Amino acid sequence: MKKTDKNTYIHELCTRAEAFVVARDWDQFHTPKELAANLSVEAAELLEVFIWKKDAEITQLLATDKVFRERLTEELGDVLLTTVLFARQAKIDLATAFYEKLKKTEKKYPIESAKGKNKKYTEL
Amino acid sequence: MKKTDKNTYIHELCTRAEAFVVARDWDQFHTPKELAANLSVEAAELLEVFIWKKDAEITQLLATDKVFRERLTEELGDVLLTTVLFARQAKIDLATAFYEKLKKTEKKYPIESAKGKNKKYTEL
Amino acid sequence: MKKTDKNTYIHELCTRAEAFVVARDWDQFHTPKELAANLSVEAAELLEVFIWKKDAEITQLLATDKVFRERLTEELGDVLLTTVLFARQAKIDLATAFYEKLKKTEKKYPIESAKGKNKKYTEL
Amino acid sequence: MKKTDKNTYIHELCTRAEAFVVARDWDQFHTPKELAANLSVEAAELLEVFIWKKDAEITQLLATDKVFRERLTEELGDVLLTTVLFARQAKIDLATAFYEKLKKTEKKYPIESAKGKNKKYTEL
Repeated sequence: MKKTDKNTYIHELCTRAEAFVVARDWDQFHTPKELAANLSVEAAELLEVFIWKKDAEITQLLATDKVFRERLTEELGDVLLTTVLFARQAKIDLATAFYEKLKKTEKKYPIESAKGKNKKYTEL
Repeated sequence: MKKTDKNTYIHELCTRAEAFVVARDWDQFHTPKELAANLSVEAAELLEVFIWKKDAEITQLLATDKVFRERLTEELGDVLLTTVLFARQAKIDLATAFYEKLKKTEKKYPIESAKGKNKKYTEL
Repeated sequence: MKKTDKNTYIHELCTRAEAFVVARDWDQFHTPKELAANLSVEAAELLEVFIWKKDAEITQLLATDKVFRERLTEELGDVLLTTVLFARQAKIDLATAFYEKLKKTEKKYPIESAKGKNKKYTEL
Repeated sequence: MKKTDKNTYIHELCTRAEAFVVARDWDQFHTPKELAANLSVEAAELLEVFIWKKDAEITQLLATDKVFRERLTEELGDVLLTTVLFARQAKIDLATAFYEKLKKTEKKYPIESAKGKNKKYTEL
């Protein structure tokens, strides 16, 4: 069965990424700091796909341009892989980090005051 | 039961993040390009935690400093949340992107030639 | 006389930045790699000022909001300072790098084919 | 005479960059936000040159590898060009931003307490 977001546990990504790294003996290069630096690089490569493009052009490309979608998917894959590798080295559980952060953010941005606004919580 | 990487499907993160955004009527701000830009910001905030620190200091902080670990966890949560929100807007399945990318990367870096090396595939 | 872009040689920035670092004995932390990592952090802090804001709102803030302009100026100052510190450590002349790059970019984007287009040179 | 940091006023870079953009009718794409996003991309491309490399290897490459130095110089040129284009659109004087920021940073990091330390000013 094809692995998708519906049938894949997060730890499956972690196990898979670990096997990839260990087989290549790359732990020696994968310090948390190095992976954090690389995450910035991968995130920028995702952003680069959109540079100089207006929203209308992007909407059209997302809907109709297979090459554009493949490039985005590939850059997003790199971001997620690097995130997983970082979490492994820093020994942080991704689900825990996600839910804790979301709870904090929900408190910082209560629905009543934040609804429909693009202000930072310090300005609400 | 506490949600962890072992018992959480990726799509659970997506559903949770969507509820957060929809309740605040924030879809109007969440274009793919804006989320990609924000992902670069969040990745840089994770990197910022390590700036000026040597690996030995970081190893010690990771092992013993609760405040340091909490800050890292929080920044990693932001990165993952933004990644999930981006995937939602771009309609990309994260697991699919991850496995496709990993397969490509494994081909670019065959174990025999890449083992123990920090070279780019173009230099192997 | 107030120092401005009109009456300041680039090397004056370099000399000033060097005095700042040497007085604090910070050369030990300022490896080229560390400064490059920090430049990504500083660039992201500049970008962060714009996140969630539409162009019309930004135009208004730039024209009328003193606090917004001061924050931007400060983040831009950080970017330039880090760029200068990087160039110092890597022993690269900034003017030389600038003019060389601009000449290459002008060749990649000839006026006839690039005028009014937001395409990458590979697509022109 | 070859233009170098010693004989080039900052505003000469600004004038040169402006001519480049105007001749291509690119002002329509060069909003401050877009240029800030691109600056993050260019800074990440500079950082990418160093990824996976240890300091000793970098020192050697900087001293002996012409291709490595040329790549760095090119990426640094991109960073500086984008910084100059951003300052132009945001109407910020680069020298002013630089000196203001440095003065603030010197106050945040007094020589007596900051000397030889890699702490943030909030921890000094």
